[in-house]
Amino acid sequence: MAGSRLGPMTTTADLRAVVETYWSAADARDWDAFAATLADEVLYDLPQTRERIRGKERYLRFNREYPGDWRVRVEQVVADGQGGQAAVRTRFTAGGEELPAIHFFVFDAAGRITEITDFWPEPYEPPAGREHLAERY
Amino acid sequence: MAGSRLGPMTTTADLRAVVETYWSAADARDWDAFAATLADEVLYDLPQTRERIRGKERYLRFNREYPGDWRVRVEQVVADGQGGQAAVRTRFTAGGEELPAIHFFVFDAAGRITEITDFWPEPYEPPAGREHLAERY
Repeated sequence: MAGSRLGPMTTTADLRAVVETYWSAADARDWDAFAATLADEVLYDLPQTRERIRGKERYLRFNREYPGDWRVRVEQVVADGQGGQAAVRTRFTAGGEELPAIHFFVFDAAGRITEITDFWPEPYEPPAGREHLAERY
Repeated sequence: MAGSRLGPMTTTADLRAVVETYWSAADARDWDAFAATLADEVLYDLPQTRERIRGKERYLRFNREYPGDWRVRVEQVVADGQGGQAAVRTRFTAGGEELPAIHFFVFDAAGRITEITDFWPEPYEPPAGREHLAERY
């Protein structure tokens, strides 16, 4: 990719600002600000459920309709201006429960989001045989 | 962070090369090449099992002892030279099964890996109520 996919004004700092706006707008249910971060042809992908949502209107509706009084805060942003992509770790809270999530973003030349891939990794018990190397927390 | 954490010779391309070496060496069981990507004080974190492994020697042993005839290939690298960090999507195969994984890396000023955080997101059934927006694949 090597820088060719982004316009001259779209830097790593720009991508970081876009994902920060995306999350603060989602947390505030400010769907106009949220929509402004998205390309019209945005593709939302959930590999764990094998679901895909195509286009800004459907994806906005998915978010507006999403049930529950959830809140979200950003934990880590890995922004790759050269590659026109970013990875984000967030923490969702809903009904007293806390859920970590991971999100990959791809951007167009104007810095709008064209692809979002979400992951929701669940807790599990470690397999036996590595207690001599790992500590639990 | 803004560039201050990395030395002048450690760019986004350098971080990308380090994670590619890390994964090709793991796939080839070339533990010397693998070890060369790691800082002595590397911290390995598995948030889903709440396990942590501290230090290069223990982490090498964890990898050498990991059971099974697994193979790994890299799907996506998001490299953030300014932030001294990267996120990677991989696909593991073992015993005919295919498992996607996600990895976050933090680097020191010399481009060695100081932190690795791994996630193994499992498939799950989508909740009802969004069939009008999502297609399945």
